Amino acid sequence: MSADEFDLIDRIRRRAATTRSDVLLGIGDDAALLQVPAGQALVVATDTLNAGVHFPVDTAPADLGWKALAVNLSDLAAMGAAPAWCTLSLSMPDAEPAWVDGFLEGFLRLAAMHDVALVGGDTTRGPLSVSVTVHGFVDPARALRRAAARDGDDIWVSGTLGDAAAALEQWRANALIDDALRERLDRPTPRLALGRALAGVARAAIDVSDGLLADLGHVCVASGVGAELEVDALPASDALRAGFGGDARRHLQAAGGDDYEVCFTAPEAARDAIATIARNVGIAVTRIGRIVDGQRVSAFDADGNEWHPASAGWRHFSA
Amino acid sequence: MSADEFDLIDRIRRRAATTRSDVLLGIGDDAALLQVPAGQALVVATDTLNAGVHFPVDTAPADLGWKALAVNLSDLAAMGAAPAWCTLSLSMPDAEPAWVDGFLEGFLRLAAMHDVALVGGDTTRGPLSVSVTVHGFVDPARALRRAAARDGDDIWVSGTLGDAAAALEQWRANALIDDALRERLDRPTPRLALGRALAGVARAAIDVSDGLLADLGHVCVASGVGAELEVDALPASDALRAGFGGDARRHLQAAGGDDYEVCFTAPEAARDAIATIARNVGIAVTRIGRIVDGQRVSAFDADGNEWHPASAGWRHFSA
Repeated sequence: MSADEFDLIDRIRRRAATTRSDVLLGIGDDAALLQVPAGQALVVATDTLNAGVHFPVDTAPADLGWKALAVNLSDLAAMGAAPAWCTLSLSMPDAEPAWVDGFLEGFLRLAAMHDVALVGGDTTRGPLSVSVTVHGFVDPARALRRAAARDGDDIWVSGTLGDAAAALEQWRANALIDDALRERLDRPTPRLALGRALAGVARAAIDVSDGLLADLGHVCVASGVGAELEVDALPASDALRAGFGGDARRHLQAAGGDDYEVCFTAPEAARDAIATIARNVGIAVTRIGRIVDGQRVSAFDADGNEWHPASAGWRHFSA
Repeated sequence: MSADEFDLIDRIRRRAATTRSDVLLGIGDDAALLQVPAGQALVVATDTLNAGVHFPVDTAPADLGWKALAVNLSDLAAMGAAPAWCTLSLSMPDAEPAWVDGFLEGFLRLAAMHDVALVGGDTTRGPLSVSVTVHGFVDPARALRRAAARDGDDIWVSGTLGDAAAALEQWRANALIDDALRERLDRPTPRLALGRALAGVARAAIDVSDGLLADLGHVCVASGVGAELEVDALPASDALRAGFGGDARRHLQAAGGDDYEVCFTAPEAARDAIATIARNVGIAVTRIGRIVDGQRVSAFDADGNEWHPASAGWRHFSA
């Protein structure tokens, strides 16, 4: 069974109806017309997921739909932005209506949770690939930029680390994948409420997609600083603790990617404010290190010995 | 030879430096920060090109870069919008620096011609695919919407029709491809100056990507009207006339896609204004028919006989 592109677009349009009054014109014209609030900067991020590269080929369509939007919303969270709209470009070898419906179920469920309107996009024939662009708003003076970390800042991270990488490791080993870990891989939670509340309080932020060490490295390069990480202070879920111990766990937490937690820096004076924010938004945050002078990102274990990962995070195109 | 994703992004960032003052933060953070002018609506369009589906696999990288941006800018032209920014998501089987440089040469040359800043994106491993999202501005009261055509409107089209489809036909037939036709397929010209000048003068507009009859059909459905097309009035290039005659040419012009001309409707009273606009922006426009009551799009030859194409335009996923 196959469907025509125009039928597909109609199918998507019917399901993507929005009540946002700032959508002047949504799906169905050459472009969308949108209204950005006065005094706010427009925040734009794009991420693409390719089958077999960014997700296992047996990922359920609803999980893929969720994840494709989640990884993009996570970028808005890491800027301290409020999300508003998205576009979706979906390339598929064929256009199975059941597959598209499943995909939209996951995609639009997450969109509805954050009042994100799907305002346009493209459906094309090709190898399975999903490209999403998200739009949001932030007061530019309060945006969380990578370049804003300062010597002496605390380093914080939300939630727990290593779960998604652990699920991938079980999947690669053909082992039974723990449900809680798989849920974290398939349905990452963009930390939007946390990011918005941190805008104007925290300094630098980044979402953990390539792995904590790699992502913290991006912050350090952009800010011209170094970092010291306490690898045994990294927050771990019960599921991760149950399945992985010692250095294997440290490695998943420090170098595994795909968690989509927010890593941020803030001055010591903001500790109470950050604890209050975490309580208010209901997301745990953990202090995991300190920004230091220099250019190096180093990690130390509980005994104060320097710790080295086997690799520094997920890199596409790596030799 | 292969390059690392982060090196690639640096490579792109270095070449994409912009002087636009409305780019508060460009490539290199979790998201871009952008400033939309007061009183203007944000206009957003996304289009993806997949190897072997939307372009011949032997397309030169610079041509692909140009075209990936051009087809998106064409959507802004058809809204009457001024372009401002774009994001680029590039999936490649490997990351040949020479290929990427060629791609960027074409992409950034067209971007520079229209002062479009590349503000973000994504490079990933996967089958060759290019997804671009473009952003522009328009006064929402003057935007050219598909739903705005009215009974009695003239139907106009810019430039010439059928050239891109003719080049594809020669390519498919393994014939020698005429240079002028190939240029039209590989390097379409988004009609941005025309679209902006028509905002507030024309009524409905669409860019001709799926084929004139199909695209005019979209306008008619959105507007609740029909259309009568004079198929022998469709503007043809010298190259098309030299290579194709009779019904073959009519078919390329009426049903071939990929020309990225602007088809628009306007009241009779606007004919002089439109002629002046066309002269000012240096793009020919031709009256090719009339919007009528009803729901049908029909075409007539010079003798007044109804003319039927063999197919109604390019449709992905067609059975």
